[in-house]
Amino acid sequence: MKYCIGIDIGGTTVKMALFTDAGEMLDKWEIVTRTENEGITILADVAESVEAKLDAKNITKDMIVGCGIGVPAPVSEAGIVNGSANLGWKYKEVKKEAQERLGVPVVVGNDANVAALGEMWKGGGMGYQNLVMVTLGTGVGGGLIYKEKIINGSNGAGGEIGHVCVNYGEEEICGCGSRGCLEQYSSATGIVRLARKRLAKDDAATVLRTQEVSAKAVFDAVKDGDGVATEIAEEFATYLGYALANIATIIDPQVIVIGGGVSKAGTVITDVVEKHYKDRCFFTNDKVKFVLATLGNDAGVYGAAKMILE
Amino acid sequence: MKYCIGIDIGGTTVKMALFTDAGEMLDKWEIVTRTENEGITILADVAESVEAKLDAKNITKDMIVGCGIGVPAPVSEAGIVNGSANLGWKYKEVKKEAQERLGVPVVVGNDANVAALGEMWKGGGMGYQNLVMVTLGTGVGGGLIYKEKIINGSNGAGGEIGHVCVNYGEEEICGCGSRGCLEQYSSATGIVRLARKRLAKDDAATVLRTQEVSAKAVFDAVKDGDGVATEIAEEFATYLGYALANIATIIDPQVIVIGGGVSKAGTVITDVVEKHYKDRCFFTNDKVKFVLATLGNDAGVYGAAKMILE
Repeated sequence: MKYCIGIDIGGTTVKMALFTDAGEMLDKWEIVTRTENEGITILADVAESVEAKLDAKNITKDMIVGCGIGVPAPVSEAGIVNGSANLGWKYKEVKKEAQERLGVPVVVGNDANVAALGEMWKGGGMGYQNLVMVTLGTGVGGGLIYKEKIINGSNGAGGEIGHVCVNYGEEEICGCGSRGCLEQYSSATGIVRLARKRLAKDDAATVLRTQEVSAKAVFDAVKDGDGVATEIAEEFATYLGYALANIATIIDPQVIVIGGGVSKAGTVITDVVEKHYKDRCFFTNDKVKFVLATLGNDAGVYGAAKMILE
Repeated sequence: MKYCIGIDIGGTTVKMALFTDAGEMLDKWEIVTRTENEGITILADVAESVEAKLDAKNITKDMIVGCGIGVPAPVSEAGIVNGSANLGWKYKEVKKEAQERLGVPVVVGNDANVAALGEMWKGGGMGYQNLVMVTLGTGVGGGLIYKEKIINGSNGAGGEIGHVCVNYGEEEICGCGSRGCLEQYSSATGIVRLARKRLAKDDAATVLRTQEVSAKAVFDAVKDGDGVATEIAEEFATYLGYALANIATIIDPQVIVIGGGVSKAGTVITDVVEKHYKDRCFFTNDKVKFVLATLGNDAGVYGAAKMILE
């Protein structure tokens, strides 16, 4: 029996999982991410934790085909990171250092891209080879998979869906310095921004005036038939549909997987986004399927393992 | 010595070229495309012409590693076309039929994608692995190359750059049925449309009022410092910059190659497009290089051969 390891390094915890080389997850665990001192101990902590797990299971290094690692940063083909705000890293040769510490072959990828690969392999995109994953969280992340492989891009910045421009008339500045980015409308914070603007526009009755406005509150209100919340959801979905229609025109995927905290609202999201997508997509792309992500926080460890097993 | 053949089937002529398997073009010729009767004779004509050429050069079939074919239609992974208006074809198993007629392995691709591959291999994008090619002709075509391979897409519609939406406020309908497509602004016909609108706006003096308006006339006037022509070129480039910035945000290329008839105006095009691109691109993509295509009508046969030699 051979094994592989999937690791998803986040700003708060490092998630790890042990898989058979047939792709079965055998165990899953996590450790705290120590980001102090420019995150200098993170890879050492990971290696120590992996060693302990393998010892406990009587698995030797020669039984490990490799270790995939997802990190919150652009990653070069050589497995080098040029800075990760979430981890404290500056320039770091992640692949090289991890291979030295772990003693097994390592492949490194951007966490959003790796999660997309995980959803293709064992999640909402299972059975497809070409997919777009969009992650609606505090920001909007994404990943593109083509022929079962990540489109990492030339600078490790492939699939930066959150910064596709969807509104050339926008005057507010995005965190990236540009204006009109998808993230300004369709992230959790973007929806709250749209909601505040809508609420300020008039005095229309809505349950949203009686509680703290959040993405969840908006979509819960949509399910209850709240008119103002529905308007906000339509605006959110208009911009997301714009972005996804242009992405599909460019790379012609089979399926679009929607994940992240906002997507927990469920099919109320995919239904309204698919409607706006179809209003704007190129005719050859009107059969694209919309599905919800299913792996939640495990997408990263699945995708990391798949980088090794592909 | 081994050889391969590159074929570019267009609506008027079929261009063909013979290459060594080291990638040197040895000969180039063309025949008329007979599109009557749903183009039923096209592949037979191609096979006959190839046979004659090989006979004349004393090259036998076992010396041919394969034949690449570009066609003006979306092409499935299996080499099937579901209709090509330019050729008269309905459903056609191009790869299968061409293999039977030619007696050598065949790979089939969309002509715009194949031309992009040609420009990567021997043209403006030489030395790069990841590129976007945009072809500014009567329409706007394009192709994406990632890790030296075409992104063909799930329906053979990868790289349909001309139908990226760049103006959500547009009211005129594009040929595709949508509104605000890049092709409505940055094709040869799109530039003429922008020019007519600008000329109708006021009576500002411009050389464009004294001649037939064409893309060439506009860019010639820009080179002569004509103010109105410069405004038109800026509008053309604004939309093209919008599209290319979004494409780069999604797939993170190294280089953008601009080709097609309009690009014959030269660096006046790449300079103004690069300026508008940089106004709008995601910060990690601001080092993308802009170059002109260099292979002209030969891009297709080069790319077709490269599909075999890759």
